[in-house]
Amino acid sequence: MINDTFLKACRGEKTDYTPVWLMRQAGRYLPQYQAVRSRFTFLELCKTPEAAAEVTIQPVDILGVDAAILFSDILVPLEAMGTPLEFHEKRGPVFPEPVRDQAGVARLNVPDPEEKLRYVLDTIRILRRELAGKVPLIGFSGAPFTLATYLIEGGSSRQFLLTKKMMYTAPELYAALLDKLTDCTILYLKAQAAAGAQALQIFDSWAGVLAPGDFGQFALPYVQRIIRTLKEAGVTVPIIYFANNGATLLDQSKTSGADVLGLDWRIKLDEAARIVGPGIALQGNLDPCALLLPPEWMEREVARILAEGKAASGHIFNLGHGILPEIPPEQAKLMVDTVHRLSRSGNS
Amino acid sequence: MINDTFLKACRGEKTDYTPVWLMRQAGRYLPQYQAVRSRFTFLELCKTPEAAAEVTIQPVDILGVDAAILFSDILVPLEAMGTPLEFHEKRGPVFPEPVRDQAGVARLNVPDPEEKLRYVLDTIRILRRELAGKVPLIGFSGAPFTLATYLIEGGSSRQFLLTKKMMYTAPELYAALLDKLTDCTILYLKAQAAAGAQALQIFDSWAGVLAPGDFGQFALPYVQRIIRTLKEAGVTVPIIYFANNGATLLDQSKTSGADVLGLDWRIKLDEAARIVGPGIALQGNLDPCALLLPPEWMEREVARILAEGKAASGHIFNLGHGILPEIPPEQAKLMVDTVHRLSRSGNS
Repeated sequence: MINDTFLKACRGEKTDYTPVWLMRQAGRYLPQYQAVRSRFTFLELCKTPEAAAEVTIQPVDILGVDAAILFSDILVPLEAMGTPLEFHEKRGPVFPEPVRDQAGVARLNVPDPEEKLRYVLDTIRILRRELAGKVPLIGFSGAPFTLATYLIEGGSSRQFLLTKKMMYTAPELYAALLDKLTDCTILYLKAQAAAGAQALQIFDSWAGVLAPGDFGQFALPYVQRIIRTLKEAGVTVPIIYFANNGATLLDQSKTSGADVLGLDWRIKLDEAARIVGPGIALQGNLDPCALLLPPEWMEREVARILAEGKAASGHIFNLGHGILPEIPPEQAKLMVDTVHRLSRSGNS
Repeated sequence: MINDTFLKACRGEKTDYTPVWLMRQAGRYLPQYQAVRSRFTFLELCKTPEAAAEVTIQPVDILGVDAAILFSDILVPLEAMGTPLEFHEKRGPVFPEPVRDQAGVARLNVPDPEEKLRYVLDTIRILRRELAGKVPLIGFSGAPFTLATYLIEGGSSRQFLLTKKMMYTAPELYAALLDKLTDCTILYLKAQAAAGAQALQIFDSWAGVLAPGDFGQFALPYVQRIIRTLKEAGVTVPIIYFANNGATLLDQSKTSGADVLGLDWRIKLDEAARIVGPGIALQGNLDPCALLLPPEWMEREVARILAEGKAASGHIFNLGHGILPEIPPEQAKLMVDTVHRLSRSGNS
C-alpha cells in the first residue's frame, strides 16, 4: 500500500495530511469520462468492467485524490433482484414495474452477487490490480430505505408520498420489502469486500426526507443490520454511512455501527463531532457549488472545514454531495491540492 | 374578534387549545378550490380578488382551521418589479428573462404595492370584511434569498448553482439584487398589514440549501432588515419566519426578529425550542405525508407533536410543508379536529 492515508483517517489514526476524495468524482464534469461514456449507455458502462475501471481511475490520476470509488450505480442490485431498470437522459432512473404490493415484493429475489452482479465484482478485481495500491478502492451500495423509494415510487421522487404511504398504512409489507433489500445489500457488500473493496460506503441519499422518529423506525434499523452482519461475518474494511441532509438524524446515525459518517454541508463538522462523540470519523462537507469559488475564497472555505474537522476522531475531506457536471475539473483539482497543502502545513 | 387563538399563540399567550392551520390550505386537494380554479389560470386567480378571497375562506369553513392565509403566490411581487412571470402546469414558475447581471438588477423597480399589487391588497380588504373576525387573516411574502433564486435560476432549481455562483463570484451584484428585493418586500408586507393582514409569514422556502455560514451572510441579514424595518415603522402584527429544511440554521434564525419560527418535520419541536430559547413561538411540524396515516396512528403523531410543542413559548400546529394535492380533505379535517380535541383536553 503506497497511500493509505484515507484508510487511516477512517480508523481515526493520525495522518500526515487530511485525505480527500469527491462523491461522483468519476463523472460527467471530466471530459475524459465523457469520452468513455460516449461509447456506452450509462447501464452498459456500469456493466463493462474494463471501461468502468478506466473511469474509476481517471480522477485518481487527474485530481490526485486519496481514494478511488468504484464506478457503478446504487440501483444495479435492484435490477439484479429482478426489477427492470431504465435510465432516461432527462428523467433519470425509471422502474417501469414499481413494487407496491405483496406480489411485487414476492417477485424480488436475493441474488448471488457472483452470478448476477459479477460485472461489479470483476470491476473491483481489475481495479485492485490496476490501482496496485496507489490509493484504496471504495465499494458501495444504497441503503435499504433509499433503494426502496426508487422501487416504490418507480424512480426519483420529490415528496415520497407512495413510500411513506406504504410505511404508514402497510408497515408489514414495507418491512418485508426492506428486509429483502437488506439481505441483498449484505450479500452485495460482502462480495465487494471479498473481491477487494478496501472500504464500503452506504448511501442513504433520501434519509433526509424522514422525520427523526420515522428514520429510527423505518430506515436506520436496516442499516444497523447490514453493518452488524458484515462485521460479524468478518468484514474488517471501514464502513461509511452517508445519510444525506441528515443533520437532525445524527444522534441516531451514530448508532449505525459505521466507522465513518458522511455529512452534507448543512451542518458544521465541529457541531457534528459534538453530537457524534469520539470513535467515529467524519467525512465531508464542502458545498459542491463552492467549487465555483475564486481561489482565495475557496482556500478560506477549505481552511474552515479543515479547522472544524479537527474536532472529529478522523476527518476525510469530501464534498457534501456529488460533484456537479458544471464544475471545471481544474477547480476540483485546486480544491484537492488546497486540502493537501493546508492540512499538511497544519495551517487550518 | 371571535377566534383569536392563533394570534395569542403567536404572542406566546396562554390559549384554551392549540391553534392550527395548514400551509397551502387553500389548494388543489380541495374539490371546491378546483371548481373555482378551473375558471382561471393560476395567475388570473391570484389577480381576481373576489375569487382569491373565496378560495382563501374555503378551508376555514371546510376544515375549521384557526387562521386564514391569503391565497396568492410569493412570486407575484417579482412580476410587479418588472420581470415577466409564467406558470407552466408541469414545470412550475418560469422567468423567461432571468436576472443575472447589473443591467438585469437595474431594470427591476421597487413598486408601490397599492399601484402594482393592488389585487393582493384588495383581496385582503375583501377577506377582512367577509371573515368578519371569524379567524385572523395571515398575509405573506417570500424571503429575499428565496425570491432571488427564482429570478437568477429562471424558475425552480435543484442545485441552485447559478444563485450560489452569483453569491460567490459577484457578491456586490448579489447584494444589489437582494437589497432591491428586500426594499420591495418591506413595502409589500407593510401594505398588507395596512390593508388588514393580522399576521405576516415570510417564506424562505430554499434557505435549507445554504451552509450555515452562507445563510448568515447571504440570506438572514435581509430577513432581519425586513422585520426590523417593519417593527420600526409601527407594524405590530406577529411575524412568522419559515426557513424550510432549516434545522441547522435555527441558532441563527432565532435572531431574525420574528415572533414565530416555522419548522419542517425534520426536527422535533422540543429540540427546536431548546435551540431557540424563550420568547419565540414555534409553528409546525407534521410531515405532510402523515396525513395519509390511519386515524389511530395520526392521533399518536398529533399527540407527539403537541407534547413536544409544550416546550415552546407558544405553539401553532401546522404541517412541516404545504399540504399535498393527493391528500383527501377528510384526512386534513381529521387532523385539525384531533389537534383541537387533544390540546383542549390536555391529553398530549
